[in-house]
Amino acid sequence: MSVSSKHLQQTEQSGLCDIGFIGLGVMGKNLTLNLADNGYKVACFDLDQAKIDAILAQDELERTTDEARVVACRSYTELLSNLKAPHTIILSVPAGEPVDHVCHHLIDAGIEADDIVVDTGNSLWTDSVEREAKYKGKFVFFSTAVSGGEVGARFGPSLMPSGDPYAWTRIESIWQAVAAKVDPETGKPIESFEPGKPVTRGEPCTTYIGPVGAGHYVKMVHNGIEYADMQLICEAYHIMRNGLNMSPKEIAATYREWNQGLLNSYLIEISAEVLDQEDPETGAALVDVIMDKAGQKGTGLWTAVSALQVGSPAQTITQAVFARSLSSFKSERVAASQKLSGPDASMTTQSSKEEVIKQLHDALYCSKICAYAQGFQLMSIAAKEHGWQLDFAEIAKIWRAGCIIRAVFLQSITQAYESNEHLENLLLDPFFIKQINDYQSNWRRAIASATIAGIPCPAMSSALSYYDSYRCDVLPANLLQGQRDFFGAHTFSRTDKPEGKKYHIEWNHPDRPMVAVKK
Amino acid sequence: MSVSSKHLQQTEQSGLCDIGFIGLGVMGKNLTLNLADNGYKVACFDLDQAKIDAILAQDELERTTDEARVVACRSYTELLSNLKAPHTIILSVPAGEPVDHVCHHLIDAGIEADDIVVDTGNSLWTDSVEREAKYKGKFVFFSTAVSGGEVGARFGPSLMPSGDPYAWTRIESIWQAVAAKVDPETGKPIESFEPGKPVTRGEPCTTYIGPVGAGHYVKMVHNGIEYADMQLICEAYHIMRNGLNMSPKEIAATYREWNQGLLNSYLIEISAEVLDQEDPETGAALVDVIMDKAGQKGTGLWTAVSALQVGSPAQTITQAVFARSLSSFKSERVAASQKLSGPDASMTTQSSKEEVIKQLHDALYCSKICAYAQGFQLMSIAAKEHGWQLDFAEIAKIWRAGCIIRAVFLQSITQAYESNEHLENLLLDPFFIKQINDYQSNWRRAIASATIAGIPCPAMSSALSYYDSYRCDVLPANLLQGQRDFFGAHTFSRTDKPEGKKYHIEWNHPDRPMVAVKK
Repeated sequence: MSVSSKHLQQTEQSGLCDIGFIGLGVMGKNLTLNLADNGYKVACFDLDQAKIDAILAQDELERTTDEARVVACRSYTELLSNLKAPHTIILSVPAGEPVDHVCHHLIDAGIEADDIVVDTGNSLWTDSVEREAKYKGKFVFFSTAVSGGEVGARFGPSLMPSGDPYAWTRIESIWQAVAAKVDPETGKPIESFEPGKPVTRGEPCTTYIGPVGAGHYVKMVHNGIEYADMQLICEAYHIMRNGLNMSPKEIAATYREWNQGLLNSYLIEISAEVLDQEDPETGAALVDVIMDKAGQKGTGLWTAVSALQVGSPAQTITQAVFARSLSSFKSERVAASQKLSGPDASMTTQSSKEEVIKQLHDALYCSKICAYAQGFQLMSIAAKEHGWQLDFAEIAKIWRAGCIIRAVFLQSITQAYESNEHLENLLLDPFFIKQINDYQSNWRRAIASATIAGIPCPAMSSALSYYDSYRCDVLPANLLQGQRDFFGAHTFSRTDKPEGKKYHIEWNHPDRPMVAVKK
Repeated sequence: MSVSSKHLQQTEQSGLCDIGFIGLGVMGKNLTLNLADNGYKVACFDLDQAKIDAILAQDELERTTDEARVVACRSYTELLSNLKAPHTIILSVPAGEPVDHVCHHLIDAGIEADDIVVDTGNSLWTDSVEREAKYKGKFVFFSTAVSGGEVGARFGPSLMPSGDPYAWTRIESIWQAVAAKVDPETGKPIESFEPGKPVTRGEPCTTYIGPVGAGHYVKMVHNGIEYADMQLICEAYHIMRNGLNMSPKEIAATYREWNQGLLNSYLIEISAEVLDQEDPETGAALVDVIMDKAGQKGTGLWTAVSALQVGSPAQTITQAVFARSLSSFKSERVAASQKLSGPDASMTTQSSKEEVIKQLHDALYCSKICAYAQGFQLMSIAAKEHGWQLDFAEIAKIWRAGCIIRAVFLQSITQAYESNEHLENLLLDPFFIKQINDYQSNWRRAIASATIAGIPCPAMSSALSYYDSYRCDVLPANLLQGQRDFFGAHTFSRTDKPEGKKYHIEWNHPDRPMVAVKK
């Protein structure tokens, strides 16, 4: 029997599941329930029986008919035999070795060449590229990066699929159903957090990104931007707390106010929630009992490393990664705080408290624009390097809902790229030019005051450096090239000669002649 | 005949060379002449006959007796047959594939198990680790990183050897002879730039660093620090030029003055030279005709990537790498300079020109301390990760002369680690605590004024952020951990509970209970 006729026969069998799902951790369980809400019958497998039991119980609780929407399987073979062919199997397992572990088991269980395996984990994008090649002929390896955390997975994440275009035609409708939705008019999320009642209108937050790995790369940069965004909010909090002596609840109120305007975003919203939260145990502000050592899972670091490697100056994203590293030296910091001197931390020597709060608002906004500009610049440079055709308007669109950095702000980025798809840098978009022009004076004041007051703001000040460097027609890299030529004969180009021509001063010669260097 | 008796017999043959040298580019040629000056007879080989001719001519010009100090060889076999056994062969070929290319040719030519091949190129340190293992049994692969550029190679570089300790016993006297020398009393270089008259007194700038690769790692960090040092000098120049309207010659004079004090260093010295230099073609200041696009060869980037990977906050070094990347977007910057607004670049709204110059001096000094603190912190963390026992006092010592970052400043670092070999961070040394205490107020003023004036100083401000973050007992990473727990259930530790215990707030539950999480 040929593969296709066999598939045809199986498809006709009723009772089979539409999708196989492997890995029922926090993300996998919620994605599965999301699929079920959208009418897909899902065959599930996990090595941990407790996780299988949990999803069966949840399905029983939530479903409105007698028919189970989720079918538990006890092996890879059973999973495959429960699926309509050609098979579509979604993985939500830890990045790295476990992905290949599952792939090998699926091969052993008889997966076929036109079956699709969709990896939704936090995989390194280059691993996805290798896997597509490695499993070619055995099955189609497809990657989809998922952002949105637990709630996003359950009620609508942002999905960044990439891989074989034919596979995409089979997956597209599934991802469109489960993805977060946006009101195309306002650019705001249309949300429902009720099981069994998925949002069925609006623009779905998923778009085909490109060849395999491209989706995970874009998600990686999303996370890099997320690191910067979080760090910037933390720096504003730090300055209000230490420089203005505001309480966590007072700062929460400020964030809620900011959330009504330009800074409206999920991260501002949840920051207010966290700052408002009391510790259930002591009644103190929760933030004060949380240990100030930041964890990280790697995607921010990968973004920074990629930026360094392709030569894209994503300095604010990188500062955010280093800020997390630095926070981990807690005991050293506590000891150093007794030994290293600093100024009085007051921010109100030159401005009133209200003025400083407004300055911080504007600083956060301008810094955020720069962090996003860096992220989009990085994707643009990486796309050239890897031969991807990324559609930045579409990428900004699918980040408007479902994902962690969702914000009205992304509507402005969408519009920037829709009006000019060749925009070299977000900073050059007329809307953002005007925004920074209007708000930069407060941005500068906030950083200058924090600098004098001794409150660190590494992400904010690196964002400003990025802006001021980018708009600088002559940077001191000319002196640097002179230094390099002096000590290492590294040569330089001249501003008045074609750039390919290289020159060197014979610095050790008494007359210091200049020679044109053949390279 | 056994290997050792064969070697014994060869050693007895007179007329053979002491050292083989492969690769006669700028560095190789000068290292060879340095070896010859120190009484070593060198057998040379290069694929390029012109380079062989050049070194023979140079030797003839410089030698004081009839006897050639350099013997040209036409093949790898001839090179080996011209050497005393066991053979010591030094490579100065481009990093990467060429190193292995030469190694394979040496194997084909009959190199033996107790022969030593010393790679002095700019190799990535992990490549050296792999090569030692790969060539085990064929010959001993040993690595020595070299700093000092052309002049250093010729008259005394800083040498960072690492690899098999037995091999080191055979190489030690050679490297001690050719290395730069320091007056142990003053910590200053003892220099001679006269061919045939090497410096034979003082402390040689070489010390055994550790297992293979450790030397190249330390050199890599040296270069990362060098990137930061150069960028800091460039930022001070940029501010004087644009914020104080000083001419290149005026800034050169300022640097020469600074070179008499705390900032005394090779890089300040050559910066003055470059700024004083007229363009031989137009008579304008050379710096103004040099294209402001910085080149880079990778070691700064590798340092930044390593810092990210081991979680060491080397943010100033990384900013310096990004500053080079950003400079390369010249045409975008020129276009952006017309579109993006900024403030008046004057630095003298609050302070006089003389005051600002003093502020910049102090800012440069404090930032430099932080950049070095980051470099030493990175080496310390990497050493723990790789099981190296690095002696930081010795490392600082061998950087006092010969290398690009040589400065009296390194004497203070040597003393810091000599008085406390377990010093966790350079910032915690009593001398540096006092220095930053004395100078930080001007450091802050310089950055604040540049921030208001719109002149970028990414490295200076990241150095200050590093200082202010490191001395901060409670960083806003507590809010960040709260955010992470909110959207991703990433859990947090409590300041009042053992750190291994992890907690999570059930944020979606109406009562928001806290649960202890088993990991």
